[in-house]
Amino acid sequence: MKKKQISFSRKHLLGLEDYTREEITHILNTADFFREVLERPIKKVPILTGVTVVNLFFESSTRTRISFELAEKRLSADTVNFSASNSSLSKGESLKDTVRNIEAMKIDMVVVRHTSPGVPHFLSRILDSSIINAGDGAHEHPTQALLDMYTLRKKIGDIKDMRVCIVGDISHSRVAISNIYGLTRLGADVAICGPPTLIPKDIEQLGVRVFYDLEQALAFADVLNVLRIQLERQSGGLFPTLREYRDQFGITRERLEKFDKEWIIMHPGPINRGIELDSDVADGKYSIILDQVTNGVAVRMAVLYLLSGREQEK
Amino acid sequence: MKKKQISFSRKHLLGLEDYTREEITHILNTADFFREVLERPIKKVPILTGVTVVNLFFESSTRTRISFELAEKRLSADTVNFSASNSSLSKGESLKDTVRNIEAMKIDMVVVRHTSPGVPHFLSRILDSSIINAGDGAHEHPTQALLDMYTLRKKIGDIKDMRVCIVGDISHSRVAISNIYGLTRLGADVAICGPPTLIPKDIEQLGVRVFYDLEQALAFADVLNVLRIQLERQSGGLFPTLREYRDQFGITRERLEKFDKEWIIMHPGPINRGIELDSDVADGKYSIILDQVTNGVAVRMAVLYLLSGREQEK
Amino acid sequence: MKKKQISFSRKHLLGLEDYTREEITHILNTADFFREVLERPIKKVPILTGVTVVNLFFESSTRTRISFELAEKRLSADTVNFSASNSSLSKGESLKDTVRNIEAMKIDMVVVRHTSPGVPHFLSRILDSSIINAGDGAHEHPTQALLDMYTLRKKIGDIKDMRVCIVGDISHSRVAISNIYGLTRLGADVAICGPPTLIPKDIEQLGVRVFYDLEQALAFADVLNVLRIQLERQSGGLFPTLREYRDQFGITRERLEKFDKEWIIMHPGPINRGIELDSDVADGKYSIILDQVTNGVAVRMAVLYLLSGREQEK
Repeated sequence: MKKKQISFSRKHLLGLEDYTREEITHILNTADFFREVLERPIKKVPILTGVTVVNLFFESSTRTRISFELAEKRLSADTVNFSASNSSLSKGESLKDTVRNIEAMKIDMVVVRHTSPGVPHFLSRILDSSIINAGDGAHEHPTQALLDMYTLRKKIGDIKDMRVCIVGDISHSRVAISNIYGLTRLGADVAICGPPTLIPKDIEQLGVRVFYDLEQALAFADVLNVLRIQLERQSGGLFPTLREYRDQFGITRERLEKFDKEWIIMHPGPINRGIELDSDVADGKYSIILDQVTNGVAVRMAVLYLLSGREQEK
Repeated sequence: MKKKQISFSRKHLLGLEDYTREEITHILNTADFFREVLERPIKKVPILTGVTVVNLFFESSTRTRISFELAEKRLSADTVNFSASNSSLSKGESLKDTVRNIEAMKIDMVVVRHTSPGVPHFLSRILDSSIINAGDGAHEHPTQALLDMYTLRKKIGDIKDMRVCIVGDISHSRVAISNIYGLTRLGADVAICGPPTLIPKDIEQLGVRVFYDLEQALAFADVLNVLRIQLERQSGGLFPTLREYRDQFGITRERLEKFDKEWIIMHPGPINRGIELDSDVADGKYSIILDQVTNGVAVRMAVLYLLSGREQEK
Repeated sequence: MKKKQISFSRKHLLGLEDYTREEITHILNTADFFREVLERPIKKVPILTGVTVVNLFFESSTRTRISFELAEKRLSADTVNFSASNSSLSKGESLKDTVRNIEAMKIDMVVVRHTSPGVPHFLSRILDSSIINAGDGAHEHPTQALLDMYTLRKKIGDIKDMRVCIVGDISHSRVAISNIYGLTRLGADVAICGPPTLIPKDIEQLGVRVFYDLEQALAFADVLNVLRIQLERQSGGLFPTLREYRDQFGITRERLEKFDKEWIIMHPGPINRGIELDSDVADGKYSIILDQVTNGVAVRMAVLYLLSGREQEK
């Protein structure tokens, strides 16, 4: 496909915490090839023919599941979907037994989403398959961060020294954590911004600036990655009302236009329009949100391909 | 595949209301080729390789979903299924956001069923994909009408001047409306028959006769397309009881045998046996109901192929 | 593929009750080829290209459904999944109408699981497709028995005269019944063991010994096929408590080690660990439970291939 500069010897993608700059860059470079495949009339390559991928979604998902499923099918892999409902788990079988049984059917790769942090790591210890973390609790969501970085890099060329601010509920966001690991690794200047109750203690140790005031964050940043307020996950009143959240941290055109900047606005979706992000910004000229979605398929194709080990065989 | 007499330049199939006689005839002619494919040992052609079709079913369905899925797979398309449950819609995302995100994954075609009339039209305005209406509320169900016409044409050669009566709850039937558009376009002499409460006002303007008495309808027609009484949709007592409905409008062998005709009996399924249609008629010599099901796959293959634009590329 | 010794002319696999020793042996021999395919980097063969298989699961299932689905995909068949929920059955349509309609879409094979015994036989009478029983009530589960026998044969060479004891709730177990038919046909010396309330009357007529005492069964047997206590199916107090069941019939290391035997321990899964089978046995050196799972895919590939009739065409 292309000249390999470095050799990629990873078997799993559990998170970006222990991925190096070189490894991340190699994934993004590889995604370029697959991004081009998506523009062809026949958006399909026979790279993973005969490889079986199981999508284990223990937490409901639309876009991530479909994005992975499309990535797998466009690589010509065989896919099997498994969701928590109508499973043996309801018969009281342990997660361990369920996945070891599925693997015994000669599975090559497992894409897993689970509400509990650490499930992908657990699977990597008990299974021989490649494990790809599609989101584990509030821990990591590495393919989301990779597609965010890919989209940013494609938009502006080089991520190094770029000023990126992640805005929202950082404490409950696996997207935020994976982005922080990835972006700092690539040399970006990363900040986070949100209410004090939604920002983890000691997060500065990950090498990020912290803003509790959106105005200051906007003065700093060129790129905003706006997180979804996860209405369904909140409880216990960590912020008073949605109206108050919007008043303090909602991204509106008026706020952006106070600065003379060529903004780049990202969001992992689904958007709560009018809460964390206004529609005229989400659908406006600064938004690269739909590019993120398209690139997500290409990035996931790259991850599947590289972890499959088929690159080495060439 | 075959010599093209006319060029088919449609991108969407939202309904038959604005399809011309030539376009409908071209679909039916094209379906002949795919109907023959279904008789081969290998019922598959590589015509839509690399094309991605998303089946968006916001309303539950067995036969229509499976029929489309088989049509897609037999054309070698990649398919992704999406149903309303376990979707982002439950997280409060709008339909517009959901489908624009799915399309951003480089989807080529969308097959959509929805309880609200007009959803396919709405999608055609906001998406670049080809949209195929698989039933929208009580509005249209164009592939059902096409397969009905295909089956009728295959049975008797030419639909022109054929006397077809659609019997049942016309007001709530997208099947009836699409059939009326299609059949009149092909020159059939179309009637409807049902209780006055279940027949829309001014329906004569669509060019159909109206019978409120089944006896008169039977005297007129040679073909009966018997609609399902949609028990789950009725409310508010538009007809007194199922027994009374059957007494007045149920198709029984006794009623048919009063006339010396070679009847043709159709039904879109699923049948309420013993209510709108008796078993000995549904399974008897006049019935072409299972032919409708078989032909449905071929007609949907033709629609997918023609809308994909691959015909033009040849 | 390989020299054919006998011709296999079956169309359905409804149960093992009427399968001959030669037919069962032919399936197991054919599975050897597919078991080898599963060890290849590309675990896929184009043997059933263009063949459509419908998986009709009216009872929820994880491993059996996924095992069949993988078997089908690795044979390059087209598959459609149908589960009882969100089906026309909820609209009151009969099973007969549903399956006749699905078959009319030019289906070649149907894999069916149903809570009612006899549903696969019923389908074989009304459909032209090949029917494979994936479990019907407490009647039969022939592919499970075939994979059990295949795994046993692979482990020890020849099943003839082998002493196999099936332990557990025999009355409610389709796995037990199919194993009894198959194992006796191949000449094994078969016993069953369980509480008197869970053993059918007159079962000796099937050619098996009956033990009500586990100690005696262990003295007899070299192979234990341990059944799952189906907690969700029990009612009416056929045995007092789970603790009492475990005390009397649970397979523990301590109990096995009283005998100087090279045990072979099987279980169809999912295991109730600590009830019918202890974890150190299930995961220990005598267990071939995960081999059963792997071999299940190969055996199902063999069944699908042989019933498809494609063997004859060569």
